[in-house]
Amino acid sequence: MGDSCEFCNTPGGPVLWQNDLCRVVRVDEPDYPGFCRVILKRHAREMSDLDQAERDGLMAVVFAVEEAIRATMRADKMNLASLGNMTPHVHWHVIPRFRDDRHYPTPVWAAPQRESAVPDERRQRADRLSQALLERLGK
Amino acid sequence: MGDSCEFCNTPGGPVLWQNDLCRVVRVDEPDYPGFCRVILKRHAREMSDLDQAERDGLMAVVFAVEEAIRATMRADKMNLASLGNMTPHVHWHVIPRFRDDRHYPTPVWAAPQRESAVPDERRQRADRLSQALLERLGK
Repeated sequence: MGDSCEFCNTPGGPVLWQNDLCRVVRVDEPDYPGFCRVILKRHAREMSDLDQAERDGLMAVVFAVEEAIRATMRADKMNLASLGNMTPHVHWHVIPRFRDDRHYPTPVWAAPQRESAVPDERRQRADRLSQALLERLGK
Repeated sequence: MGDSCEFCNTPGGPVLWQNDLCRVVRVDEPDYPGFCRVILKRHAREMSDLDQAERDGLMAVVFAVEEAIRATMRADKMNLASLGNMTPHVHWHVIPRFRDDRHYPTPVWAAPQRESAVPDERRQRADRLSQALLERLGK
């Protein structure tokens, strides 16, 4: 896997939090402040390739990230997805959605519904995510 | 919730398996034989609105469905997603993906990459899913 896998070779974004199992990174997507990815550290393709302790540990982080994003961003809806067609290394997208965002109510991968116009206040909220993660997940 | 929520008012598809917490339904999507949804029975918007026992129970079913689909469909990749922008009632999409499917390698919600041409053999495999779920999840 190592040589060709993006998530084996790069962090995949600025790291907001990590433990031995996984890291939480900020996704650089101007339309979606607050968008995070939770990336498994070891290489595995599918959730069902993980043992029970790994599944439980990873999902606990995913749901803590959801809670931190909800508390920080005040999203209208949260979206969770583990796809990996392009990068088949287990990772979760955790995405705050807003009624006025570029794709709402369709998934962020669908055709845009409107021009993006992210309020400054929403970008400022995203700056507090790192602290909100620390409060939920510890150091 | 009740009156206006699709998943409070309808099963959401033919039920392949169920317990007190959730049901697994077949998604009627000709491009994607084997596509299942796992729908929480009670109304809740977000995974982080569930208590720990509900989260654990629901994810155990989601991952068992992933395993059943992998074993039955021999997918190239599995996709998992909990979005709910249109129907904000907790449900998981569990989707077998193939290199020749209509959207691969983009998500099924993106613009199609090609005309769909699902092999008959793939449709026949999907007919065995119900049995594969029973083997993993019991009655």
